[in-house]
Amino acid sequence: MPDLVCDACGNTYPAGDRQHCDCGETLWYELATDFAWPAESGSLWAYGDLLPASDPVGIERAAGGTPLVRAPRLDDYAGCRIRVKDESANPTGSFKDRGTAVATAALRERGADAIGTVSHGNMAMSTAAHAASAGMDAVVLVPDDIPEERLGHIARYDPELYAVSGDYGRLYEASFSLAPTFVNSDSPLRVAGQKTTVAELLHQFDGAPDAVVVPVSSGGHASGTWKAVRELHAAGALDSVPELHFVQAAACDPIARAYRNGDDTVTPVADGGGETVAYSIANANPPSGNRVLRAARDTGGSVLSVDDDAIRDAQRALATHAGLAVEAASATSLAAVRELTAEGRLDASDDVAVVATGTGFRERPPTPDTVHRVTQGELREQF
Amino acid sequence: MPDLVCDACGNTYPAGDRQHCDCGETLWYELATDFAWPAESGSLWAYGDLLPASDPVGIERAAGGTPLVRAPRLDDYAGCRIRVKDESANPTGSFKDRGTAVATAALRERGADAIGTVSHGNMAMSTAAHAASAGMDAVVLVPDDIPEERLGHIARYDPELYAVSGDYGRLYEASFSLAPTFVNSDSPLRVAGQKTTVAELLHQFDGAPDAVVVPVSSGGHASGTWKAVRELHAAGALDSVPELHFVQAAACDPIARAYRNGDDTVTPVADGGGETVAYSIANANPPSGNRVLRAARDTGGSVLSVDDDAIRDAQRALATHAGLAVEAASATSLAAVRELTAEGRLDASDDVAVVATGTGFRERPPTPDTVHRVTQGELREQF
Repeated sequence: MPDLVCDACGNTYPAGDRQHCDCGETLWYELATDFAWPAESGSLWAYGDLLPASDPVGIERAAGGTPLVRAPRLDDYAGCRIRVKDESANPTGSFKDRGTAVATAALRERGADAIGTVSHGNMAMSTAAHAASAGMDAVVLVPDDIPEERLGHIARYDPELYAVSGDYGRLYEASFSLAPTFVNSDSPLRVAGQKTTVAELLHQFDGAPDAVVVPVSSGGHASGTWKAVRELHAAGALDSVPELHFVQAAACDPIARAYRNGDDTVTPVADGGGETVAYSIANANPPSGNRVLRAARDTGGSVLSVDDDAIRDAQRALATHAGLAVEAASATSLAAVRELTAEGRLDASDDVAVVATGTGFRERPPTPDTVHRVTQGELREQF
Repeated sequence: MPDLVCDACGNTYPAGDRQHCDCGETLWYELATDFAWPAESGSLWAYGDLLPASDPVGIERAAGGTPLVRAPRLDDYAGCRIRVKDESANPTGSFKDRGTAVATAALRERGADAIGTVSHGNMAMSTAAHAASAGMDAVVLVPDDIPEERLGHIARYDPELYAVSGDYGRLYEASFSLAPTFVNSDSPLRVAGQKTTVAELLHQFDGAPDAVVVPVSSGGHASGTWKAVRELHAAGALDSVPELHFVQAAACDPIARAYRNGDDTVTPVADGGGETVAYSIANANPPSGNRVLRAARDTGGSVLSVDDDAIRDAQRALATHAGLAVEAASATSLAAVRELTAEGRLDASDDVAVVATGTGFRERPPTPDTVHRVTQGELREQF
């Protein structure tokens, strides 16, 4: 089993349940000094050399292996050549399955029979589903004001569900002192699994595109993205490094603010942030936010934010010009590309991959504005 | 381009927009006299030798390539060794994308820039999405009493949407005389694409399991299933043929009734059939129903029906024991296996693959019955 390392201060710890460095930053696993691209890539386990687990069962085996869709009809909208990494093809409809699959497999290898998580969205569903598939117990902590329908989507997999009153933001910290092991959004095991989103993307693209754009919330997926690029480049499997751009919703964008201010650390949004359609990524106090700043600066990328009008517009464009019904949080990445090309940071000749993190099927669709109401006779006259 | 053939009377027609034989049965394409399993199978296009199209774009390229999940925690429930072909991993969350992708690609190769379909469910969403991705026009005919939310899921991709009053069942027949080309659920192009569900499954299993169980509505997917098995066996790519079992909801089961009665043709359900949670497959007058009878008998399989209680129970088992949230219609296949093992038609040593045809994320989840409502202090005492 590899070491746990702090990329901020360089401290190293033996592998295990420890998740944070004494300096406060989240640890990650140091892997893959030696790596060769696999011949096939039907699931994330094709990239097993990058992972701290090796014996998947059930839907763990099916996580990853999502398509990278070339979407030429979005090029004009985006201002560059667009590919969409469609993470909705995962077993529970989001990128979270990659981190969960690796986490549940690794925990079992350590003898654990349970997993906990703090989430009221995709991660909760993913964790509950993987535990159900593997025969593990799942403890899921949600805020007590969670919408009924979302609670139903989580409960379907029959986890132990706790609706917790009080300041939900504090549960992230508190959960690490509870049993079972809580694998939250930026936990080392989850980040290890999340490396495979971009590893697979780079494999499918056959190298590095000019830029990769990823929505950011806690910073866990962003960490995995950066870690994969670092490991693959260090191993000689990647000749060049793509710019990594991370995007938040303007209503709650503490990392983007810190980036604009030139800060090295993220200041939490005091009032918890405003409402946004991209609720999945509204994180007022992102635990791996500082690392996201390092990732953006290290790769020549950026951290930016987009408002709800831009998010809705990009979400509509993904459906009407690429046939992809993604959740609002996923559409931030396309909205960000539009901003980056408008600013001249990217241009029409650039190949850009946006990560669509999750399905829009669990969100209520907008009311249609144009439906022709006809009789069968009227229909025949029309065509 | 291959010929169109009638498997009932043997008549042959040149390839083109013709969909039905003079005898009334639906035609299918005759392909793949020569076939070798591909090295990789990331999408349905790996099985290009089986297909009457070859130049996919956008999400067409991403259709298929879905996982075959070994689900050992369902074995006790099912009474045999279960694998689930998870079609929710397709771009619009259902098996329909396979048929649509092949149809839109083939129509473009013939110079068409539009496609029509009669559907108020998965096929409507799939057709609208593929047209959006490829820059084609889509005409979608839905019944005027369609639920608002389902209409929203279709409208998201911006097709020309017609809500048609009157007897919706008659629109299937009527649509073939309209322009553009209507590719309905058992149209030859769609059936050609649907062959890849089971071709891929057999490839992933590395041969034929003892049985494959598929939900049946119009008979289009069932036709594709049977056609693939026939072509692969004839080409020498498959040593043995699995039993093909097809399942309907008991509330509307004209094909299962005909099977039980020993009939060669299906009699439509006079009153349109009863209500069922498996609304996606409630087809009172299945246009390819006769072919389904031939497929079941030819392969030593059967056509059976399961009631709503059994469907709901199987749907719950798929979520709580395999981590798969499928739509109710998909769960009929697992409910059918339970019936087949109870009858002794299949036993514990049999390898059985059930096709889970589509995602449950667009269905309202049940209200959860067990949620622990606690304060943060109470939570700490618990763990």
